[in-house]
Amino acid sequence: MPEQPIMVIGGGPSGMEAVRGIADLGYKVVLIEKRDRLGGTPELANYAALTPDFRDAGEAMAEMANAIQDNPNVDIRTDSVVTNAEGGAGQFQVTVQSGDKTEQLDIGAVVIATGFTHFDPGRETQQYGYYEYDDVLTLVDLEKMLKTGEVLTPSTGEPPKSLCFIQCVGSRDRQIGNEYCSKVCCGVAAKESIEVRKLVPDCKVFIFYIDMRMYGYWENEIYWPSQEKYKVNYIKGIATQITRKGGRLLVRGEDTTMGRPMEVPMDMVILSVGMEPSAGTQEMAGTFGVALNKFKFIDTVGGCLNTVTTSVDGVFACGAATGPADLEDSISSASAAAMKAITTVRKASLAAN
Amino acid sequence: MPEQPIMVIGGGPSGMEAVRGIADLGYKVVLIEKRDRLGGTPELANYAALTPDFRDAGEAMAEMANAIQDNPNVDIRTDSVVTNAEGGAGQFQVTVQSGDKTEQLDIGAVVIATGFTHFDPGRETQQYGYYEYDDVLTLVDLEKMLKTGEVLTPSTGEPPKSLCFIQCVGSRDRQIGNEYCSKVCCGVAAKESIEVRKLVPDCKVFIFYIDMRMYGYWENEIYWPSQEKYKVNYIKGIATQITRKGGRLLVRGEDTTMGRPMEVPMDMVILSVGMEPSAGTQEMAGTFGVALNKFKFIDTVGGCLNTVTTSVDGVFACGAATGPADLEDSISSASAAAMKAITTVRKASLAAN
Repeated sequence: MPEQPIMVIGGGPSGMEAVRGIADLGYKVVLIEKRDRLGGTPELANYAALTPDFRDAGEAMAEMANAIQDNPNVDIRTDSVVTNAEGGAGQFQVTVQSGDKTEQLDIGAVVIATGFTHFDPGRETQQYGYYEYDDVLTLVDLEKMLKTGEVLTPSTGEPPKSLCFIQCVGSRDRQIGNEYCSKVCCGVAAKESIEVRKLVPDCKVFIFYIDMRMYGYWENEIYWPSQEKYKVNYIKGIATQITRKGGRLLVRGEDTTMGRPMEVPMDMVILSVGMEPSAGTQEMAGTFGVALNKFKFIDTVGGCLNTVTTSVDGVFACGAATGPADLEDSISSASAAAMKAITTVRKASLAAN
Repeated sequence: MPEQPIMVIGGGPSGMEAVRGIADLGYKVVLIEKRDRLGGTPELANYAALTPDFRDAGEAMAEMANAIQDNPNVDIRTDSVVTNAEGGAGQFQVTVQSGDKTEQLDIGAVVIATGFTHFDPGRETQQYGYYEYDDVLTLVDLEKMLKTGEVLTPSTGEPPKSLCFIQCVGSRDRQIGNEYCSKVCCGVAAKESIEVRKLVPDCKVFIFYIDMRMYGYWENEIYWPSQEKYKVNYIKGIATQITRKGGRLLVRGEDTTMGRPMEVPMDMVILSVGMEPSAGTQEMAGTFGVALNKFKFIDTVGGCLNTVTTSVDGVFACGAATGPADLEDSISSASAAAMKAITTVRKASLAAN
């Protein structure tokens, strides 16, 4: 019996990388994407540049999509969702709905790459006025602005004279149930701070943080340059409230290094929103009967030596579907999931022959 | 033409994972390890438990070794080193020396998984007295002690009443040329702090840090428990000097949160040493003509969307050979390197047929 095709769910960086890997090794793969195009969150959210290497995000996502689009081993189904799954490892029957059309596919193994969603800073426990004040934005809003090549204070249309990032919005926060760290927001904020300083050299830029998690090479690639070359100011402090006063925003909180309360006027405030599991991640876990962890990301069961195996044999997960992940994590874990999925269909095929 | 075998160099976690992946997919693989056994740094350095999941390190490494040891696709050569390489992608001729025996192997693609070495805290720019004072240890020394099930102050043979970790020893330090962050030392220190508190409940444990880089789930899995359940004290501060006074160690530095100098007596001081490229990593880069980055880790050329491709076609690198990496990174990037190595030998075989 030849190997059954593998299904990858989600057309973001992790899903596209898994598909490319599987196809390169000569196996058939079906990619299911609910939107009308590939590219995932970087494309959907209009990222300007990737962290940490400042590569044009649109170009990078297009390159990943092109690498799989004309491969005869790859069957890409956009505008499609998985609505049901039966069977088990080596022999799943997966129902896919594309518009009015419903089809049942025989699938040998599944890779869930349904990613994350950005934390909504309007949740009631957050005192940052995101839905009240035009000049309070998120990392994602700023990314979109950076893509236009201009940074302008929304309420005035003028370039800001001062701008700050507030870290850990929606992360490291037990009150809202997100005790985890979202891993990438420090790096993204530092990267965006450099871009702001490049576009608006007169703008003073501040980053209020608890710990700057610039791990590995992010330290020397973006953290040090942001301070030394681009004169971004890092302040260890927690902002507790944002109000509006005299046409500007007022950030209240505590400067923990100076050990005193602070009250700083700002033209723009950027909330460094964290990651939460996407709707698709939670839906696919339900459809395939895969266990979620307490934060509702997909639970992996292999400890730190295997982070793609789920509670269901033959179903693997990669990228931010399993929790906070940077692009390097998403790309690498995609390969790990792809390998294990191929191993599953090979084993089933060998057993049947 | 059938595919040429793939060579994996280094029998640590990343190398073993790459070998397992390649063999599971039905390809031939030769593993070269210069020591007499597999297990890499966790085995060599006698790690007690893995970070962050506290799994027994010896058991975990033995399981990884067992998974490849009797696989007919795997040719394991311990006590062996690569001494020369010619040719290119799809057709390398690699010379392997095992004792007195020298052999030339035809190899299709290469995965370098030669890992890191721990920073030597005796370097002259470090004022921590590692070679002067018996009670100044490293994370690695403590790990070995934890494995015995007893934590004892070396100079007295008594359990310590106070113990502190000093973070960023050999990392984030331009003076010694290591501007990068070593990524794992925060997590390892937090894990070890929990183990110390479990074994010596009367011992006060402190961690002096610049930023606690407990990214992703490390935040909720080890950082919060270490503070809340195990009462470890985190102090944002930089220790600049260790001296000995009245039979105890005296840690001098600055408590940056309190904004004042500190002078704290301690029974034991643990230096959280970072990662540097191993000798094997630098040697193999030389043998295969692979470019190193300025820190002498292997340079990867694919940006954040491909972290295993080196400057030489057909030669890939994974794990800490390319820079600071935690176990999850090492395992995932091993799969990525394995996939690309397989793709290389497949392509060469298809082209020749």
